[in-house]
Amino acid sequence: MSRQLEINPLNKDAFAPFGDVIEIENAERLMINDGTAERYNDLADIDVASDGGRPIISIFRGRRRRFDPSEPIEINMMERHPLGSQAFVPLQDAPYLVVVARIADHIGPDDLYAFLAQGKQGVNYRRNLWHHPLLVLNDGHEFLVIDRGGPNDNCVEQYFTPKQGYAQLFL
Amino acid sequence: MSRQLEINPLNKDAFAPFGDVIEIENAERLMINDGTAERYNDLADIDVASDGGRPIISIFRGRRRRFDPSEPIEINMMERHPLGSQAFVPLQDAPYLVVVARIADHIGPDDLYAFLAQGKQGVNYRRNLWHHPLLVLNDGHEFLVIDRGGPNDNCVEQYFTPKQGYAQLFL
Repeated sequence: MSRQLEINPLNKDAFAPFGDVIEIENAERLMINDGTAERYNDLADIDVASDGGRPIISIFRGRRRRFDPSEPIEINMMERHPLGSQAFVPLQDAPYLVVVARIADHIGPDDLYAFLAQGKQGVNYRRNLWHHPLLVLNDGHEFLVIDRGGPNDNCVEQYFTPKQGYAQLFL
Repeated sequence: MSRQLEINPLNKDAFAPFGDVIEIENAERLMINDGTAERYNDLADIDVASDGGRPIISIFRGRRRRFDPSEPIEINMMERHPLGSQAFVPLQDAPYLVVVARIADHIGPDDLYAFLAQGKQGVNYRRNLWHHPLLVLNDGHEFLVIDRGGPNDNCVEQYFTPKQGYAQLFL
């Protein structure tokens, strides 16, 4: 049993229930450094202090999930980080996929929302938001990730049951 | 009176007195997400909690500082942020310049160190480190910046005196 997920373009309004879109577009421009740089300030709500947490910076490099681009990508699980937000900002200008769900104890394929993010758009998942792990379209696509380091378990995974089935993304 | 600054390639060892180089090279690789992503974890010491500070994410877009590439770039001031570290990670793969000095109350052109960073290298300036504002070589070069938001003044600038002169960078 599978459900085909509609893929919507990513923008701040559509993504507001889930977190922040980190992009210059529609952000306020501040001139700094004596006019030699533009600053687009404070673009995401970094929420990593729970339970003695601290912000950490990492680089993720995504591997492709299918070898034939005509095949759908299958979504059969989601995860959430109860102790901190998690931001992904692409380091190469290439599109990628974002799959999220509203906060709930248990979710299934019918609860998912999919977005196509452009290479100049990062996303910041709110603390505890259900999301799918990194879904790159270009093998080796790299992201700067700002999330939480610290004590206690900060990852909950949920695999869909056979009865729930899975979701498919066609591009 | 001017001094020509030697420009060295950026690497972790050379930059260790000043902060972190944020890059995959020589970082430990962790496989995550069921083998579909590599994580290079915790690449910088984010130190932004002083005086009620919090981490913020911004995008900086640098403007070129000279119109004729054969002209030197002149360094006549430095700045430091006494309350927090500041990380810059390039969002396009292009080289840029980094100018820093060891921690001291007052500095001049003779105290400067210059590095050529590659587009796959970010830098994280330690809290209170003297550094020059963003020095891009490509007009419009963008960076993700992770620094401190919060109360109290977090920027100290020092302009060199006429007696001190300035430093020049030739590329």
